[in-house]
Amino acid sequence: MNRQPQPAITWREDMIPQDVTLIERFASASGFFRPDEVLLAADFAAEHLSKGPESGYNFIFAQEGDQTLGYACYGHIPGTLHSWSLYWIIVNQSTRSRGLGSRLLAQVEQRVAAAGGERLYIETSSQPMYHPTRRFYQSRGYTLLTVLEDFYARGDGKVVYAKTMPDLAKG
Amino acid sequence: MNRQPQPAITWREDMIPQDVTLIERFASASGFFRPDEVLLAADFAAEHLSKGPESGYNFIFAQEGDQTLGYACYGHIPGTLHSWSLYWIIVNQSTRSRGLGSRLLAQVEQRVAAAGGERLYIETSSQPMYHPTRRFYQSRGYTLLTVLEDFYARGDGKVVYAKTMPDLAKG
Repeated sequence: MNRQPQPAITWREDMIPQDVTLIERFASASGFFRPDEVLLAADFAAEHLSKGPESGYNFIFAQEGDQTLGYACYGHIPGTLHSWSLYWIIVNQSTRSRGLGSRLLAQVEQRVAAAGGERLYIETSSQPMYHPTRRFYQSRGYTLLTVLEDFYARGDGKVVYAKTMPDLAKG
Repeated sequence: MNRQPQPAITWREDMIPQDVTLIERFASASGFFRPDEVLLAADFAAEHLSKGPESGYNFIFAQEGDQTLGYACYGHIPGTLHSWSLYWIIVNQSTRSRGLGSRLLAQVEQRVAAAGGERLYIETSSQPMYHPTRRFYQSRGYTLLTVLEDFYARGDGKVVYAKTMPDLAKG
């Protein structure tokens, strides 16, 4: 059986109005987020759409031709000099296991390092369903810093990871 | 020597446009904040002024008659069910050592508990100049959860405290 060559992924940073709905759909379809978290993901996008980089939220979309396969949202942490946060990486369900999450993460890391960032923080949940998520970040060089028990909800703690320079620049 | 009876403190939650400048002056005069942090304090106030409670930032001002002696800024942490954060307590330099910080903190705790909050987080700096700040929170029942080294800047870590229910409701 012949395999079709897959179109190359391109990276898009400019947001278009349709992205807000798209992000809401991605977040909702992932099955990982409560309704208030889905709205929060869409809020971040709407903030960026109306204020641009001033919003403090940067976006990068993975494109395959016209189709958006996933995105990452990250930003400089206000009140810090060189600390950044990765807010979300969400990949379209149907394109899982193509390594797109890793490639999006590498894109974010390169951009953070290029902007003078020295530390990239990732906060995620301590719940069992996030085990693959935590393993993903650990396998990509992120160090577990702390767990704040019951942070998100009772029984749902916040796990904090970070990757620092010079590892960050290696992507 | 007679001591004048001191006018009672009243608590004000409605913000007026002049508060933005006042907060900037308080933050700047405290000597505790970098210029970007002073601007951030003013930004939070401007957000609240334009959006109200929707901003996610609540304010409480300590009034002695017409004069504002200090304020606290706090809010529900987006993406969590019952977690709140105290962003700032700043007291006018000339009114230090009158216990106003403690009273502002108690006011915040009561309001958070009344709103269904179960945990109040406080983030502050690991730098030596913040030793009195850290002692202040520890003496008021806050538990040290973690220190994220170099978070704010090189050599300036983030120290995270929390107070949880039922201690929170006791103020």
